[in-house]
Amino acid sequence: MTHIDLQCAAAAAKQSSRQLAVLGAEAKHRILQNVAAGIEGSAEAIFEANRQDVIAARNQSSQNGISSSALARMTLSEEKLLQMARSVNVVSGLEDPVGKILLQSELDDGLKLTKISCPFGVILAVVEARPDAVVQLSALAFMSGNALMIKAGAEIARTTEVLLGVFESAYERAGISADALVNVKSREELHELLKLDHCIDLVVPRGSSELVRFISSNTRIPVLGHADGVCHIYVDAAADLNLATSVILDSKIQAPATCNAVETVLTDRRIASGFVPKLVKLLQLGGVKVRGCKKTRTIYRDGVDLVNDDEWHTEYGSLTIALRVVESCDEAITHVNHFGSHHTDSIVTEDQHAAAKFLREVDSAGVFHNVSTRFSDGYRYGFGAEVGIATGKLHARGPVGLEGLVTYKYTLVGKGQCVSQYIGPRARKFKHELSASEVAAG
Amino acid sequence: MTHIDLQCAAAAAKQSSRQLAVLGAEAKHRILQNVAAGIEGSAEAIFEANRQDVIAARNQSSQNGISSSALARMTLSEEKLLQMARSVNVVSGLEDPVGKILLQSELDDGLKLTKISCPFGVILAVVEARPDAVVQLSALAFMSGNALMIKAGAEIARTTEVLLGVFESAYERAGISADALVNVKSREELHELLKLDHCIDLVVPRGSSELVRFISSNTRIPVLGHADGVCHIYVDAAADLNLATSVILDSKIQAPATCNAVETVLTDRRIASGFVPKLVKLLQLGGVKVRGCKKTRTIYRDGVDLVNDDEWHTEYGSLTIALRVVESCDEAITHVNHFGSHHTDSIVTEDQHAAAKFLREVDSAGVFHNVSTRFSDGYRYGFGAEVGIATGKLHARGPVGLEGLVTYKYTLVGKGQCVSQYIGPRARKFKHELSASEVAAG
Repeated sequence: MTHIDLQCAAAAAKQSSRQLAVLGAEAKHRILQNVAAGIEGSAEAIFEANRQDVIAARNQSSQNGISSSALARMTLSEEKLLQMARSVNVVSGLEDPVGKILLQSELDDGLKLTKISCPFGVILAVVEARPDAVVQLSALAFMSGNALMIKAGAEIARTTEVLLGVFESAYERAGISADALVNVKSREELHELLKLDHCIDLVVPRGSSELVRFISSNTRIPVLGHADGVCHIYVDAAADLNLATSVILDSKIQAPATCNAVETVLTDRRIASGFVPKLVKLLQLGGVKVRGCKKTRTIYRDGVDLVNDDEWHTEYGSLTIALRVVESCDEAITHVNHFGSHHTDSIVTEDQHAAAKFLREVDSAGVFHNVSTRFSDGYRYGFGAEVGIATGKLHARGPVGLEGLVTYKYTLVGKGQCVSQYIGPRARKFKHELSASEVAAG
Repeated sequence: MTHIDLQCAAAAAKQSSRQLAVLGAEAKHRILQNVAAGIEGSAEAIFEANRQDVIAARNQSSQNGISSSALARMTLSEEKLLQMARSVNVVSGLEDPVGKILLQSELDDGLKLTKISCPFGVILAVVEARPDAVVQLSALAFMSGNALMIKAGAEIARTTEVLLGVFESAYERAGISADALVNVKSREELHELLKLDHCIDLVVPRGSSELVRFISSNTRIPVLGHADGVCHIYVDAAADLNLATSVILDSKIQAPATCNAVETVLTDRRIASGFVPKLVKLLQLGGVKVRGCKKTRTIYRDGVDLVNDDEWHTEYGSLTIALRVVESCDEAITHVNHFGSHHTDSIVTEDQHAAAKFLREVDSAGVFHNVSTRFSDGYRYGFGAEVGIATGKLHARGPVGLEGLVTYKYTLVGKGQCVSQYIGPRARKFKHELSASEVAAG
């Protein structure tokens, strides 16, 4: 699209968002059911497009090395297609996040304040070359009443086109404007859209931390996402060491590329000499490259490279881990707050006092006690669907479900009241009477 | 302070925020009561500092024109001092926003997830040259468990020093680190601090929209505040015209410099020829300079300047108003969403259908029906205290009370659970059992 076309598309998406915002839960449910059926019904076209994408990616990968795991993620199977359709059904069954009354108060007789949830308007989503991510984000944006402009990884361009077509037909049958879903096809288009902060209300980037950082520093539009996952496990002096070992191995080895995998293990000095050698050997047996601070290497040197002081921020995202010996729980907390990315950090201890201190004082979206950092995830938390994980502190923190895609507004309904009536010597007094349901809930 | 001193002060504030975060409601209440008593007890020193500030400002104002209203705002009286003390008492009596359990769920036997509110950490506040604003923000930051770095208008430097001293003595008596409250004395220091996004968690700017815009575009720290207040009133075809007139006059004249004053009145074409002449005359009688679109000037021309198409974004912030004739409620909504600042907009109508449409489709923090835009305010909403008004959609929207100064975290407490147990053919299933209180509330 040209510069002007893009601006028009964004403005049209904004206009269409007014239509989406007022759709009822029932209508959204029905339309997403049609999308799910449409995915199964269009299986042949989807597979054909995906086959062409995969062939093109394979040809390219022999030249500049697309990873086999990336190829696997973009390739659709019968099972994956059914899963995609199912995931749309799951989203269609979630509670409607729009129109929830968050607060209701009678400010005075006949002057009623209501705080009510509403969509953002237009969401710009950036997803990896994964067909399931395209489908999931599209369903989540629709269910939360937002128009969507979506940029998927270029490797799945043909698949994306067909999948978005399925959404569009379902929208068309329901009389919803085609402007409500826009396929953003190139990086140049994406960069242009990041400038349109008067049309686009929220950016949801999923992908590498470089991508998230690039987007955050190149737009004035609010960004919902996280940049880094530098997670820690602190093994306290009063830890159950077997429990510590299994939690550390799970947090590192089970899926080392994920953002909630552990990067640094801090061990209390008082138990380090007994614990560190066993831990290092088990990690190395599991194929993990172990690095350590000076004290760690005094205790166990074999195969353990030195971590320099400026390297504690590192997100390895692979089978590499850094070990550090600390003086106390206090020093562990200071390390985590300073070098961590405020994602997820866990303490292993049987000392309830130390655990409570860690849970209170560590400044992260997820602070855990005696469990693997890998639990930090919308599905495991029971949110039904995950939009992303936020490490910022505004709006949403940690795993974010459908509620992360809505905001709220205040409506005030009266019968001609003026502020001047409530000012001066004969001023009326406000009642500020919370409604009954509010009192019960609050 | 030098560059290095500032960095140290910010880092020390961060460290001290761990102490503040764990203070109980009772302790915070007691300490703020001591602050309130301290303000009354230090009245003499406060008045003396304020007298010097006022003399210096008067001398300066004879040269470069500080407004008399600004001078009035910075000058303390016995009554104002008592009000300041009282406002601290009010804040001390607010419900503690920290440690609220927002969600609790048993993910599996012995694996308990809790979503709990917590302070941001370090807040950087920028306030005008108003002693009451310094006191109020300091009390709000403390009550929400945050360390505070505060930059007040330079005109009240001496007053600010003494007032912050009152807080510091109360903190000292309670054993709270002096690092928890930092007086930022110059604009240069402020600019340096805006770079320290690893130490400062939130910026709260109060003041001109230029200031807010400058801060928003010169920091990576999240900003809680609003830039513009371009508020609208739409007079629908089915409006009660007497009600419309009084609401418009209140919204414009009662306090024209405030952000919730109306800037543009939209009138439905079908009633314009009857309504506009009366409205213009009443506004002009009230000392308001009236501007209008071409159609408005066809209806009533006397003293009505033309508004050009690129001027509908204007926040006059004074006794000036712009009138436009629109074709329909739909066109009014489109105008408001396009030219407004998403602050507060009101429809005047007896047609419930048009009102419902306006309330649903206008994308603003406050959307009103048959009331003055001036009600958009934390005190009038019944929030007890107002941190500011936000026109962004993330985190807080509209008037923001104490709850705007806290975020949340998830704690997860288990007994050694690993994610690998929940994956694969013999995977354990999650329970995701919301706790009883949660079910009742939700």
